[in-house]
Amino acid sequence: MREPILLTPGPLSTSLATKTAMLSDWGSRDGAFNALTAKVCRQLVAIAGAQASHVCVPLQGSGTFAVEAAVGTLVPRGGKLLALVNGAYGKRMARIAGAIGRRVSVYEVADDARHDLAEVAARLAGDPAITHVGIIQCETSTGILNPVAAIARVVAQAGRRLIVDAMSAFGALPLDAREVPYDALIASSNKCLEGVPGMGFVIVRHEALIAAEGNSHSLALDLADQHRHLRRTGQWRFTPPTHVVAAFASALDQYRDEGGQPARLARYAANCAVLCSSLEDLGLRRFLAADVQAPVIVTWHAPEHPDYDFKRFYEAVRARGFLLYPGKLTRVETFRVGCIGAIGQAEIRQAVAAIRAALLELGWLSELEAAHAARSFHEAA
Amino acid sequence: MREPILLTPGPLSTSLATKTAMLSDWGSRDGAFNALTAKVCRQLVAIAGAQASHVCVPLQGSGTFAVEAAVGTLVPRGGKLLALVNGAYGKRMARIAGAIGRRVSVYEVADDARHDLAEVAARLAGDPAITHVGIIQCETSTGILNPVAAIARVVAQAGRRLIVDAMSAFGALPLDAREVPYDALIASSNKCLEGVPGMGFVIVRHEALIAAEGNSHSLALDLADQHRHLRRTGQWRFTPPTHVVAAFASALDQYRDEGGQPARLARYAANCAVLCSSLEDLGLRRFLAADVQAPVIVTWHAPEHPDYDFKRFYEAVRARGFLLYPGKLTRVETFRVGCIGAIGQAEIRQAVAAIRAALLELGWLSELEAAHAARSFHEAA
Repeated sequence: MREPILLTPGPLSTSLATKTAMLSDWGSRDGAFNALTAKVCRQLVAIAGAQASHVCVPLQGSGTFAVEAAVGTLVPRGGKLLALVNGAYGKRMARIAGAIGRRVSVYEVADDARHDLAEVAARLAGDPAITHVGIIQCETSTGILNPVAAIARVVAQAGRRLIVDAMSAFGALPLDAREVPYDALIASSNKCLEGVPGMGFVIVRHEALIAAEGNSHSLALDLADQHRHLRRTGQWRFTPPTHVVAAFASALDQYRDEGGQPARLARYAANCAVLCSSLEDLGLRRFLAADVQAPVIVTWHAPEHPDYDFKRFYEAVRARGFLLYPGKLTRVETFRVGCIGAIGQAEIRQAVAAIRAALLELGWLSELEAAHAARSFHEAA
Repeated sequence: MREPILLTPGPLSTSLATKTAMLSDWGSRDGAFNALTAKVCRQLVAIAGAQASHVCVPLQGSGTFAVEAAVGTLVPRGGKLLALVNGAYGKRMARIAGAIGRRVSVYEVADDARHDLAEVAARLAGDPAITHVGIIQCETSTGILNPVAAIARVVAQAGRRLIVDAMSAFGALPLDAREVPYDALIASSNKCLEGVPGMGFVIVRHEALIAAEGNSHSLALDLADQHRHLRRTGQWRFTPPTHVVAAFASALDQYRDEGGQPARLARYAANCAVLCSSLEDLGLRRFLAADVQAPVIVTWHAPEHPDYDFKRFYEAVRARGFLLYPGKLTRVETFRVGCIGAIGQAEIRQAVAAIRAALLELGWLSELEAAHAARSFHEAA
């Protein structure tokens, strides 16, 4: 069978150009590799619109390593994080703060809801110990888009610092550092920028990073130390994932050639629109309201059939060449379908056809719905 | 120019088969990828001879991330590490222990010397607070081979626990867990097993890992949590470097097909022998005595010429297709040449010819030495 297409929020399907960029070995202290790192960092800071204020600190490991590094480096040992939680990644940021010995307060709302801005302001006013606020731009656990710009204004008005986990948003969903004040934005190579997994990065306000010397609970995850070494030598402190960096450099060139953030968002938005209308034609229901849905990953209620089982559904769709993503909610049975990666509407239509065929085979889709869906599908194609 | 050959201690030159294994995208929660992870871990435990006693915990990031994870997970918050230091990586382990808030005592000897076993025993007897001893099997900063088996006996007799940083040794230099007692052995994908960089792993005694629950100073670097999740779900906790894992799986198959540890050691030993005799014919002198030199990386005194400059030397050799490695010693001027990676005696001979030509061009090699070296070279070829 051909390699399956990943309908996942990263790792995701990457282009062949991105993967073939890994067919060279690089000396990790060689000038050519140092130039590659510098170019990647320059491009990332430019995508963030942060050239005047922030630096990019790359970090080995997954995105969560970069989140821990940002919290551990920026929140002082006597500081306190207010974590805005409406899903698993907000919970994870709070868990990290606790695990590394930082005080943490959690403002949690339902998985399909956004935080009340007045309530955020009230919590900041009521707890002077809070130094930093953490927010997830796109909660991958549901696909909800949080209003980072509005939250950033509230945080800035209260004189506190913002840490944005933009993991599954950066590069596709706009967030311009010239307009939205934040101390740190965290993302990784393998989401909307369509690289392969193995490194994260933090776009961090330079002054905040300088002031954060000595805060870190860790050597490996100390962004201040990583940045100082990189600036002094041009090299990563510890062995970089050279092939991953090379793939990322290629992916960033492809991103630029595609047209940057507006083009990336347009492609994902089109993918998402086709996915949503087609699966709704099959009778499936979205978990989120349309106005809070980011065009990154869509959470669907499981088909309403007494025999429903995600594993069987997954395998039936997999046999047709596509990988779905499991749900991450505890109170309702869901599954997720990603719209990101090196895929377009053609792949989304093929995926919908595979999902439809799988549901029919499993007996979880009525003939009536199937006929309706097939009609819509052919009209649209 | 053809891509240069890396005479570095990792990242190193990998085979084309290893690199082409990265031309697929994998779903990080898919059964096929879980099976790949499980297979890699099984092979690593088998290479260590540790099937009956230890488990393999893979970790995202560089080898240093795995060292910090091992120290942070295994040394309890009230514990104390005795770090045996004779180079930069021993110093780094001590620095890590301090950075994460563990008490640490350092027994340091010169870069070209080994630790006195009686002194290790005396320090353990004299400080009951010491719970763990850390040792570097092959100190990449010089290439010295430390006597891990002998140290392990001393540590076991004193009732303490051993942590072995086997980064640039594992897979080539023998260390059998059935004969040498240790709680943790740390290595990475991109050294003697000839994978690409982006992940480390820890071969950890299962009972020690179970007892280490709750010790870690970090969420991302908590090996106990990583292992529990992996055992329960078959998946990494956080996004794995899927392409790096796939390359490592291929590299491990090639390692097995080559003949495993004895064959890998034999190839590296032959590389090292050719390198040493050929560069000595050029009049270059090794930093280490032959009886403590591991066949992994060789430290050389810089040519004795008033104009010597590593950068010029590096660029002149690079222009001929080979990457040298800088020295890491502060009191003497040195450079390093690696013997590891997907290279054999042919590449080593080409490298020596490149070094010779570079030295001649730079005027740092007398014609007499050059003539002598050319004769030796042609006789050997």
